[in-house]
Amino acid sequence: MDTDLIMLGHGSGGTLSHQLLDELVVPTISGLTANQQNDAALLQAGTSRLAFTTDGYVVDPLRFPGGSIGSLAVHGTVNDLAMIGARPLWLSCGLIIEEGFSRRELADLLADLRRAADRACVQVVTGDTKVVPRGKADRLFITTSGVGLLEHDLEIHGANARPGDCIILSGSAGDHGMAVLAAREGLDAGGLQSDSAPLWGLVAALLKTAGDGLHVLRDPTRGGIATTLKEIAIQSGVLLTIEEAAIPVKSQVRGLCDMLGLDPLYVANEGKLLAFVAPEVAETALEALQRLPLGRDAAIIGRVEQGEPGRVRMRTSVGGMRMIEMLAGEQLPRIC
Amino acid sequence: MDTDLIMLGHGSGGTLSHQLLDELVVPTISGLTANQQNDAALLQAGTSRLAFTTDGYVVDPLRFPGGSIGSLAVHGTVNDLAMIGARPLWLSCGLIIEEGFSRRELADLLADLRRAADRACVQVVTGDTKVVPRGKADRLFITTSGVGLLEHDLEIHGANARPGDCIILSGSAGDHGMAVLAAREGLDAGGLQSDSAPLWGLVAALLKTAGDGLHVLRDPTRGGIATTLKEIAIQSGVLLTIEEAAIPVKSQVRGLCDMLGLDPLYVANEGKLLAFVAPEVAETALEALQRLPLGRDAAIIGRVEQGEPGRVRMRTSVGGMRMIEMLAGEQLPRIC
Repeated sequence: MDTDLIMLGHGSGGTLSHQLLDELVVPTISGLTANQQNDAALLQAGTSRLAFTTDGYVVDPLRFPGGSIGSLAVHGTVNDLAMIGARPLWLSCGLIIEEGFSRRELADLLADLRRAADRACVQVVTGDTKVVPRGKADRLFITTSGVGLLEHDLEIHGANARPGDCIILSGSAGDHGMAVLAAREGLDAGGLQSDSAPLWGLVAALLKTAGDGLHVLRDPTRGGIATTLKEIAIQSGVLLTIEEAAIPVKSQVRGLCDMLGLDPLYVANEGKLLAFVAPEVAETALEALQRLPLGRDAAIIGRVEQGEPGRVRMRTSVGGMRMIEMLAGEQLPRIC
Repeated sequence: MDTDLIMLGHGSGGTLSHQLLDELVVPTISGLTANQQNDAALLQAGTSRLAFTTDGYVVDPLRFPGGSIGSLAVHGTVNDLAMIGARPLWLSCGLIIEEGFSRRELADLLADLRRAADRACVQVVTGDTKVVPRGKADRLFITTSGVGLLEHDLEIHGANARPGDCIILSGSAGDHGMAVLAAREGLDAGGLQSDSAPLWGLVAALLKTAGDGLHVLRDPTRGGIATTLKEIAIQSGVLLTIEEAAIPVKSQVRGLCDMLGLDPLYVANEGKLLAFVAPEVAETALEALQRLPLGRDAAIIGRVEQGEPGRVRMRTSVGGMRMIEMLAGEQLPRIC
């Protein structure tokens, strides 16, 4: 293997992605250490605390049950803002279009983007359009960036998990990844839809009910719940214990995963969050989520414990203990 | 011709780009009218006025005399912020990488990006990396977004040109476009380099010397000086008259353009600005620019006049008058 070459796995969100980012990209372009990396950057502009983030969308196919590259490009980015507790306000939209792409299809996908932006109460305020010759890109790539406002002075980030915290997952695992994969491969997904959705409503409910008991928020996208939990355990230097039986997984996701040899814990979500909250507010916060449509299936799936820093372990449904590591290599390419 | 298909010319920055943006992209994704479109959006965040912008970079080749996709991805975006009078502060960096691209080359290009960011006094604070399979993208695309701060309460935008204003061009026309084209086609450019550079220093000098006499700033990138002037004439509803003899054009650019049948006025620049300033401050502003290395060749190239709104005319070197229109179709693909 020529180790100089970028591999598909470097875009997986898992171990290879972390290597590429930690060894090459991040030290080269910014001064941030791994521990300072969150879904969005926190900026101080005058007296305002702002959040700023970006994501590229290269999903294949461009449409899938429950969404499209247009809606995904809004949800993914506004959710990254929400994950540091910021209200998403403004988006930019950069298009890279392959020559020969259909204007009609472009219009439809951008209409999806607009509807998603309206639903998320954000405005697309700036953009850019590039066209490259046939064969130099695959139909359409969208990169959105977002700016949001923090309306509180809480510090919500991945290094803030504390022993005793309860880990809340806002709903079922793996819906997005399996819906996209099934659409791409022509598999019967039994009506499964992507969970792609804007999460600010859930975050606002958590801010209101948990207040300064809200320590960490993260949306488990590429790499899934397992990779995200492992990242938080490392950033916070804590041990996490989760309960397999507590993690909601839809029967269609379980069926497809069993068939393909995948683990739902490593499959991407686009409308779920993990919240780490102090034990005294956990039940109130959970109930607040469950009252919202997007949080109906929210559950406490584990706890932060004293113990070996950076470890995540799972009590399996049959009673054993299994160590959880980051996604190794590429599980599903072009899932977002 | 199938009018449903996106053509290369839709990315030119000229007439076809305007059609695609005005008819499809902008009305679909935002509520902005053509007159409200500037290089960057102006955002009110608490008591702070912010600028926000994005640009995708698909330049081919990835390296060219005077720069690379890495430095260009910084300069293009910080310049868009500067063009509404904002000090550039923060950047995001979204990478789309083709499987099989060289890590070493990626590291070199990102080192360029970092050096350019350091030189422009901006910080890359957030990013995203996607990898697509071989053949689904052309090596590397970069999308950067920028956030800047307005430290004054001036309104600098394309609809603000006023009869009497002097039009200043900060240096020679067409260097970037011809340098990239020559590199791509293997032409001898006689040592010509791209002008790719950060323009905030020039803008700061203009703000200081022209104050509220500074009405419009725009960097003439894709579509060149001609297209940019035409946009401003339309947005402001004014007539512009420029003097061909006053526009600096390097001999190498003129030679290549003559050979290829191109007009330097339509060739992209990446380190030049057009400033529209009130006549009483024009000389002082011009001298301030000329004292800076990037503005050494700055010149007053024309004036805003009462007359037919949206028209741009040029007094040619031989004394005739020629109407200037936007770039029609695609002159040079993948120039930025």
